[in-house]
Amino acid sequence: MINTLYLPELREMLATHDVAGLQEFCSALHPGRTAEFMEGLTAAEAWAVLLATDLSSRAEIFGFLPEEIQTEIVEISDPQEISELIAQMPPDDRVDLLNQVDPAVVEATLPLVPTEERRDILRLRAYPEGTAGAVMTTEVAKLSETLTVRVALEELGRQAEDLETIYYIYLVDDEDHLRGVVGARQLVMHLGKPETRLADLMERSLVTVEATDDQEDVAEKVADFDFLAIPVVDDQQHLVGIITHDDVMDVFREEAEEDAYRAAAVEPLQDSYLQTSVLSLAWKRGVWLCILFGAALLTAFALKTYEEVIDKVTWLVFFIPLIMSSGGNSGGQSATLVIRALSNKDVTLDDTRTVIKRELIMGLMLGGVLALLGYLVGLWLIDATPYEILVIPITLLVVVIFGTLCGAGLPLLFRRLGVDEALMSTPFVTVLIDIGGVLIYMTVALRMITELQELTG
Amino acid sequence: MINTLYLPELREMLATHDVAGLQEFCSALHPGRTAEFMEGLTAAEAWAVLLATDLSSRAEIFGFLPEEIQTEIVEISDPQEISELIAQMPPDDRVDLLNQVDPAVVEATLPLVPTEERRDILRLRAYPEGTAGAVMTTEVAKLSETLTVRVALEELGRQAEDLETIYYIYLVDDEDHLRGVVGARQLVMHLGKPETRLADLMERSLVTVEATDDQEDVAEKVADFDFLAIPVVDDQQHLVGIITHDDVMDVFREEAEEDAYRAAAVEPLQDSYLQTSVLSLAWKRGVWLCILFGAALLTAFALKTYEEVIDKVTWLVFFIPLIMSSGGNSGGQSATLVIRALSNKDVTLDDTRTVIKRELIMGLMLGGVLALLGYLVGLWLIDATPYEILVIPITLLVVVIFGTLCGAGLPLLFRRLGVDEALMSTPFVTVLIDIGGVLIYMTVALRMITELQELTG
Repeated sequence: MINTLYLPELREMLATHDVAGLQEFCSALHPGRTAEFMEGLTAAEAWAVLLATDLSSRAEIFGFLPEEIQTEIVEISDPQEISELIAQMPPDDRVDLLNQVDPAVVEATLPLVPTEERRDILRLRAYPEGTAGAVMTTEVAKLSETLTVRVALEELGRQAEDLETIYYIYLVDDEDHLRGVVGARQLVMHLGKPETRLADLMERSLVTVEATDDQEDVAEKVADFDFLAIPVVDDQQHLVGIITHDDVMDVFREEAEEDAYRAAAVEPLQDSYLQTSVLSLAWKRGVWLCILFGAALLTAFALKTYEEVIDKVTWLVFFIPLIMSSGGNSGGQSATLVIRALSNKDVTLDDTRTVIKRELIMGLMLGGVLALLGYLVGLWLIDATPYEILVIPITLLVVVIFGTLCGAGLPLLFRRLGVDEALMSTPFVTVLIDIGGVLIYMTVALRMITELQELTG
Repeated sequence: MINTLYLPELREMLATHDVAGLQEFCSALHPGRTAEFMEGLTAAEAWAVLLATDLSSRAEIFGFLPEEIQTEIVEISDPQEISELIAQMPPDDRVDLLNQVDPAVVEATLPLVPTEERRDILRLRAYPEGTAGAVMTTEVAKLSETLTVRVALEELGRQAEDLETIYYIYLVDDEDHLRGVVGARQLVMHLGKPETRLADLMERSLVTVEATDDQEDVAEKVADFDFLAIPVVDDQQHLVGIITHDDVMDVFREEAEEDAYRAAAVEPLQDSYLQTSVLSLAWKRGVWLCILFGAALLTAFALKTYEEVIDKVTWLVFFIPLIMSSGGNSGGQSATLVIRALSNKDVTLDDTRTVIKRELIMGLMLGGVLALLGYLVGLWLIDATPYEILVIPITLLVVVIFGTLCGAGLPLLFRRLGVDEALMSTPFVTVLIDIGGVLIYMTVALRMITELQELTG
């Protein structure tokens, strides 16, 4: 959604080199709002606006611009100016940005970044995508546990502007081992006793994560404990960074997105829908479509095996799509419920029996209702004996039960085999149920319909 | 996942009335951790453990217990003790809790809660589920803009223990109109100049939400701006509460959950999978299954119309499931991509033409690949002329294009009509494409297969 309210004024100011006006625009509002009002500008225009303001506001507003614009700005602007911007950005955000940018540009820009920041960037870039290390920031309020509340607050006041969060102060020993944490709340509550030592206030029992932990697990931990931030340590308990609540929120949004794509058999996108090229999108969709096509081919083979049945009793064909979609939909429901429950830890492998029992009852109930509806429709639509038409409700009942059991059972099986059950998308469950559905339908028909007796005889 | 490490010790301590041991257990760890270690206890046991510690820790740990246990504790324990607990809980959490509890118990407990807290509860309960008002807390650091940094810090130190967050201090006039905000960071940075007035530090350009706003919009706002909390105002700009980052995270998780269920045509659950009764689950699934069944019935009617075609050319039947699942899967992919893009605001109605053009190209590419595969399979599997077998690739191509266009177009249409596009689940798109698929298949067959010419003739 583009907010075009300010665009003409901004362009006017750019054209007339109205630096004072641009400065005013950049400082009047929350940087997030300012960035919103800049949507619709080209990358070059946006950068020209930002150059009018001081480096600190520039970096702040820049951080709220859409990713595509950020990347483009870095790629088209003066490397020296960009290197200053990068040195000013939060450590985690700049690493994310550089990972998006053309490697040639990164190579040209990095040498211009001051040594300390450059080392930090290289260190963070070493952590694989999706780990705590890749999400964390290294700008953390780190103090010695021997300080007093007064000294700590003074120190904090000096560092405050550079820190991503000052709300937790992490206490370390001489070798940077994490020893405890003190909340800013604690400090404020002890303003009246400024000589209290931090060691006496600090919480020693800490919840930490390791830099190599999966970002999703980290996010769950932060959310479960209602933390503002969580400290990240290496394998020797050195404090290497923190992950803050806003990064956790981004992880949640990203993971929800990925789950939604997977459930529809699309490989998760890196960029937004319109930013992803048609070719790359075709690949992300085509791979899965071909796999599902291959599986669905088996239904064609199965039906060919029953060619004579179909030939003799044409009305059986009318109900093929109906029966398959009933099985597929009920199985898809079960799969989604069980996958969500597994990922929320509402269900574990220990609950396998309970889940299967519940889904069996569910299949009986849902299948029963659809069977009744199907029978009524069959009686109305088909010119056959009521006994023969029973093929439809019986098949529906069995297929829906088969669907719920497969849908619930497959994720549990995947989990037991150590495979991520979220990879098993609903369409995949559906196609398996389709194949089973054909076989069930034909088997029931062969047993119940007089004209077909000779085939089995 | 139940952590059973401490359970025997806890039960032992309960049996021997080891109050000191229980107190130690309740205070040694982060309350979230303590609650984790209590998982596996019955509600009665958990409450007995909590009664050993002081009211403030009791409320904290209680807040981390699973929802079901919280509800059960309130329902089975002494109303007087429960009313004290409720008075101590954060305002937003206790309202959530009371909304889960048997109304008769609420009626028995509420009169025992101190007047001020009771009024607060009744006020918050008046906001409908899903609005900002229902999520917010009323415990907010509210100060006058005329105060100095020193006085503000003193005041904050006094209130700190009761406040959900002290990181933003909201400044109000005599009538509680929101005037500005000062971050705790600002205060700490001005410790050296304690006589600075808050009015000189405060940010006047505020991002606020109204109490009646949808919780999802509020969550997006907080996440977009990386806020720790957002102020909630009424229609006259009175500050009525705040929504903090942890509530926003809960909203995100809840909404992601709902979207996942909707995409599989399940009405969102209120409780966890195992806590939801089989009957209620059957209802949440059955309603959608019946609607989809009704829609799928149309495929049966469509096929019956083409009875003669199927009768004459049996091999057409083999490919019915394959063609339908190809159309359904590609349409489901498009629907998911467009629904996500709409909800992320990556795509708006203004992009309709672009989206349709992209999906058309996508359909051509994906359909082309599947058509090629389908033709090869057809040549191998079917005893007919290569010309006649062209029915399969042509249908696949048209159906996949039809699928991508429907999948992308329907959410855009729903959005234009003002209906929530997320309600239109993937199975619903699929069933529509199934019906179209049958019609396309039969039409193509009638035109291409010699034996069928007399039917159209």
